[in-house]
Amino acid sequence: MAQLGESRVLQLFMPMLDEHNRSVIQVASAHGQEPVLEVGPGDDCAVLTGDNRRTVITTDTLVHGQDFLDIWPAGPRSGGYEVGWKATTQNLADIAAMGAEPVSLFVSLSLPPETPYGWVEDFARGILDSLHACGATVCTVGGGDLGSARDASVTITAVGRCENPVLRSGAQPGDTVALAGRTGWADAGLRLLTTTGSLDSIEQLPSTEKERIERAVTHQLRPVSPIPAGRRAAAYGANAMLDLSDGLVKDARRIAEASGVDIVFNDPAITELARELVPVASLILEHQPHNDHGDSAVSLARECVLGGGEDHGLLACFPAGATIPEGFVALGSCSAQERSASRILCDGYELQNYGWEHYRA
Amino acid sequence: MAQLGESRVLQLFMPMLDEHNRSVIQVASAHGQEPVLEVGPGDDCAVLTGDNRRTVITTDTLVHGQDFLDIWPAGPRSGGYEVGWKATTQNLADIAAMGAEPVSLFVSLSLPPETPYGWVEDFARGILDSLHACGATVCTVGGGDLGSARDASVTITAVGRCENPVLRSGAQPGDTVALAGRTGWADAGLRLLTTTGSLDSIEQLPSTEKERIERAVTHQLRPVSPIPAGRRAAAYGANAMLDLSDGLVKDARRIAEASGVDIVFNDPAITELARELVPVASLILEHQPHNDHGDSAVSLARECVLGGGEDHGLLACFPAGATIPEGFVALGSCSAQERSASRILCDGYELQNYGWEHYRA
Repeated sequence: MAQLGESRVLQLFMPMLDEHNRSVIQVASAHGQEPVLEVGPGDDCAVLTGDNRRTVITTDTLVHGQDFLDIWPAGPRSGGYEVGWKATTQNLADIAAMGAEPVSLFVSLSLPPETPYGWVEDFARGILDSLHACGATVCTVGGGDLGSARDASVTITAVGRCENPVLRSGAQPGDTVALAGRTGWADAGLRLLTTTGSLDSIEQLPSTEKERIERAVTHQLRPVSPIPAGRRAAAYGANAMLDLSDGLVKDARRIAEASGVDIVFNDPAITELARELVPVASLILEHQPHNDHGDSAVSLARECVLGGGEDHGLLACFPAGATIPEGFVALGSCSAQERSASRILCDGYELQNYGWEHYRA
Repeated sequence: MAQLGESRVLQLFMPMLDEHNRSVIQVASAHGQEPVLEVGPGDDCAVLTGDNRRTVITTDTLVHGQDFLDIWPAGPRSGGYEVGWKATTQNLADIAAMGAEPVSLFVSLSLPPETPYGWVEDFARGILDSLHACGATVCTVGGGDLGSARDASVTITAVGRCENPVLRSGAQPGDTVALAGRTGWADAGLRLLTTTGSLDSIEQLPSTEKERIERAVTHQLRPVSPIPAGRRAAAYGANAMLDLSDGLVKDARRIAEASGVDIVFNDPAITELARELVPVASLILEHQPHNDHGDSAVSLARECVLGGGEDHGLLACFPAGATIPEGFVALGSCSAQERSASRILCDGYELQNYGWEHYRA
């Protein structure tokens, strides 16, 4: 890109985003909706319409070497396409978790000058394909920033609109706890991707197992969050909701603590979520360089389901007796907080020490 | 920070931001204004009130080694305080340049695990002090993200509200072109900071010269943009406006091209802007390692004024004959575009090749 210069790079990939924005605005107009993006990229700021609905905003960064690798030890690559896709999905999920509709993304991209131009084009395609895959049909790309850095990084800020946001703090004892989307698959995918040789033998596996292993890898590289399920949850009266970015137990604890309840998962529901992951867990265990903990495939699959983040499923609490909307599966319930701190329980046992922590020494 | 962990870091510096937000909301309420930030940091998203005014949004990234150095060759340091300050100012300026009021910032911070905790605390103080210095009195910090990276970087997304945004594309022939804030000082400061020894001798200088040199350095490390001037310009009917981030000529060309006009600067007005910078330019020339172009201090001061970015002044075009609001200084006027491309002129000559370019080989 050093040869092209910033303005030439923008001139080359902005038309893709402009075309996307025009198409979103046309579709909105055809459905009698006012397009939310009034002024897109190119001025000091983007302009969104005035709107008596609330505006919700979130921001997240992915950094090369920390959040993605160019080439994973198992072989697959994360190019611009995967980086654009993943950064988009994780931000959309935060918007959906408020019960809101994503209306615009703002993208700040920092790249080493030697980055090939194709990376940027792939990155833009990754953003747009994630929007479609996640069902974020009216979401535009409102603006951004392009700069240089030693390590590639991208920060996406997502903006949504809703009537009444669904917070983490509204869960009530008796609420049903339900999941839309997946949990554990992206974690299983990460374990496969970071282990040399783990994907070499999958051609010999039965097609069902092969398909599951590919699904796990795909969920890590190109996660799909069920975005419309967020608004559906709000419409069905969800009391609390969040995006599962750091793992089921750690994120459920955030709802529990904010709401002052305990959350009790049903063991059969958790077992059912883990069941499909068992063949993937078997393959992981075959290839783990230090597999001396005696883990079984069943326990590892369960660990992925309870502790794995980055699938960006939505965890919602619905009032006792309320209908749970399409796309959600009940996993347990909220109960009155029994101790001084909120607890996450399953089958009578407390679940602890699951989930992701930055800066862990 | 590796010892503290992400959540402990957040627990330590979030109270500063929370206290700031509470104070902003109290002040707004005391003036009978509805506070715009309904839900601050801690949930999946921040929530802003519904509002029939328009929402404007911008995003910008600063990266260690590219946009700031820990220790400058001339001696001064850029710690967390300076990084937080500068990232805040540059985003506020984009909001002001739409004629809008900044209402909330979203801050994504990526840091090496070995960063001392004090850096993060300084960073938060730098954000808050910039808000005050720039006059962004009702701007809250709505949320953010904290992660790890090899090089420190910060992305701030700023959100504002306005009735009618002032775009770059509205300038008309006959408009008066006027500046609020400074131009050239941050560039002069950068030249001093990047030259070893340039600041060693300033104690011996007369106090006026010393003060100017310190002002230039301060403008690079902690720029102040005249944020309320943006809304004032909108209220006085500005036809076009932008933030001077890449230099007067390069940014004026953006207005000229978007509006289809030429912009003609008055030579005496430019000379007057450069006059105060001449002693600073003299000191720079004394210390430039390769000063073989025979530049004079007068011509270098003028180069800073015409080509230097990062002061974040506001350049606005007011209708012919309209009163120019307090804080703005007339620099020239718009005229009908005479050639196929818009031109920037001064004293009959065309001004070219000024301004900053990323990825320049």
